[in-house]
Amino acid sequence: MDANGGAAFTATDHAMMARALRLAERGAYTTKPNPMVGCVIAHGETVVGEGWHQRAGEPHAEVHALRDAGERAKGATAYVTLEPCAHTGRTGPCADALIAAGVSRVIAAMRDPFPQVDGAGFETLRAAGIGVASGLMETQARALNRGFLSRVERGRPWLRVKLATSLDGRSALASGESKWISGEASRMEVQHWRARSGAIVTGAGTVLADDPALTVRMGDDTPFVPPLRVVLDPGLATVARGRVREGDAPTLYLHAPDAKPPRGLLAQHAAVPLRDGRFDLHAVLRLLAERGVNEIQLEAGATLAGGFLSAGLVDEVLLYVAPVLLGERARPMFDGLAIDTMMQKLKMAIVETRYVGQDIRLLLRPEPST
Amino acid sequence: MDANGGAAFTATDHAMMARALRLAERGAYTTKPNPMVGCVIAHGETVVGEGWHQRAGEPHAEVHALRDAGERAKGATAYVTLEPCAHTGRTGPCADALIAAGVSRVIAAMRDPFPQVDGAGFETLRAAGIGVASGLMETQARALNRGFLSRVERGRPWLRVKLATSLDGRSALASGESKWISGEASRMEVQHWRARSGAIVTGAGTVLADDPALTVRMGDDTPFVPPLRVVLDPGLATVARGRVREGDAPTLYLHAPDAKPPRGLLAQHAAVPLRDGRFDLHAVLRLLAERGVNEIQLEAGATLAGGFLSAGLVDEVLLYVAPVLLGERARPMFDGLAIDTMMQKLKMAIVETRYVGQDIRLLLRPEPST
Repeated sequence: MDANGGAAFTATDHAMMARALRLAERGAYTTKPNPMVGCVIAHGETVVGEGWHQRAGEPHAEVHALRDAGERAKGATAYVTLEPCAHTGRTGPCADALIAAGVSRVIAAMRDPFPQVDGAGFETLRAAGIGVASGLMETQARALNRGFLSRVERGRPWLRVKLATSLDGRSALASGESKWISGEASRMEVQHWRARSGAIVTGAGTVLADDPALTVRMGDDTPFVPPLRVVLDPGLATVARGRVREGDAPTLYLHAPDAKPPRGLLAQHAAVPLRDGRFDLHAVLRLLAERGVNEIQLEAGATLAGGFLSAGLVDEVLLYVAPVLLGERARPMFDGLAIDTMMQKLKMAIVETRYVGQDIRLLLRPEPST
Repeated sequence: MDANGGAAFTATDHAMMARALRLAERGAYTTKPNPMVGCVIAHGETVVGEGWHQRAGEPHAEVHALRDAGERAKGATAYVTLEPCAHTGRTGPCADALIAAGVSRVIAAMRDPFPQVDGAGFETLRAAGIGVASGLMETQARALNRGFLSRVERGRPWLRVKLATSLDGRSALASGESKWISGEASRMEVQHWRARSGAIVTGAGTVLADDPALTVRMGDDTPFVPPLRVVLDPGLATVARGRVREGDAPTLYLHAPDAKPPRGLLAQHAAVPLRDGRFDLHAVLRLLAERGVNEIQLEAGATLAGGFLSAGLVDEVLLYVAPVLLGERARPMFDGLAIDTMMQKLKMAIVETRYVGQDIRLLLRPEPST
């Protein structure tokens, strides 16, 4: 069935939804584990209210927009980037608020697949006599919340591998040294990608080689919810050291079932089953999804990155290519790919290219193997 | 001394020289071993004649432009991208032709460093009372003829390494297979870079693994002078086979001093001294420069490409990056770089990036090591 009941969306509808999507994006660093949502309330081309979801536990986008609109919400159209909720969580149902405010029409970019919504918001609105249409700019809305949707629909977070490599595809020297391949502008920009992640995942090898803090460092007052720092450390060999344990952001160690967390370990820790002596990476992602992680940024070495890629669990690769050569002795980009024939080559779609300082940034998505 | 005698070039001067440079470029595939030269003859903003050097042995750019201008050359300004010649080669001196035609002023982009010219053209013109200025858009003019200038000024051809790699910087599978990493659009585009080269150089390993023809294949009637095909084959192990010997383009085998060319070998062959059991690559380039090669396109494996790079003999890298991964077992981009610390990384300047089909094409120049 056509979700919008056959209604054709107008240019004004598109403009309003585009505005709502931009509003939604303002919550990128703060709404997790909730989705980003934006809302515009308008009479024709006149915007009378707008809002976006800012932080989990705080009012939803619709509530902000309705407050902004006040009496002018009556008879207006509400544009929302996600189906309004119909359940009482930490805040009341938005569908009820829209009805109470007297809007005459609700246009959503997409249905909310979250089990407690999943069409119930639309039903509530329709039952109150409000015109409802869905599917306007759905592609963009899905791209915006690819993390949330991945968690709800696939039961695992969206996984982004962040890599800095040389032109000859090397992620570190043979010694393990990787400071710094990419330039300062790239390393600054990475902070924004970290900020939108629910978790930054690394391996014990990277903790030992680089001692990264894996915190978000911004040069300004931009608010963000610190991502969970996750260390995959089968034997818990690194829990006694490292900047990854310092600071305000929480840290979670994932370990093998037989590893014994030392007494007095303050950081979170959890066991993950092994498979052939290595972490079951599906189980790792399931565990993180259960903890509300929408988006993962993997900042690890070639072995772990290659492991996730080989398992078909990588959704995108954020690749900073520095204009240098590191030579054939240096570490590969992904390890363990086991490609022997041209038929086996892994195809990637280049979603975007741009310069960041002296580096070239590529955003890549693995293509389904044929 | 200021080459243009303190004269300030006008916007019209720049426009005319830009036009002359574009004309010059039309000879890219045919003037070798001569430089590309363009000429515009104008009265103020009115162009009365234009021409470009089309083929070695045929008239120079100035002669074409003067013929085009006829009587209107009198009192005009001649814009030439390179100092007019003053010597009689296969054609008469252009400086004399300009004097005879009665032009009142000659503006050149640059002095011709070729020993038989090297300022003599300017002197001849000045002696005849013609106003002469040089240095207008010299950077562009030098870039245009970087091959010719390299041969004349450095005694070696400009060396371009053409590579097709995966995103992870691999130029072939472990088996040596490299057909095809890059897409069809890239492989078509490479033909244009081949056509402007004086020689296409490869190694015996590539002949054995890929059996390339190393000819120029264009889908249209574009005229070109076929580049010399050069195989670096120390032991002359490949002379009995291969598409590189077929067709109209000449082939030259370079071999070790102790290798004996088989009787009846029709292809050209020459000995090159070895150094530590490998070709002295400086000697290879010297030999090709002596044979009139301005620009080399190296289409070889990682060993030879790495050898030239390590020797500091690579001037540019034409890199087609295909959106695929080939994995850590595959062959590197350059072999033998011997980089162990970040200080040793080789820096490249990215001159240009563009999409070619599904691939990304980078034009790179090695930066002087610090």
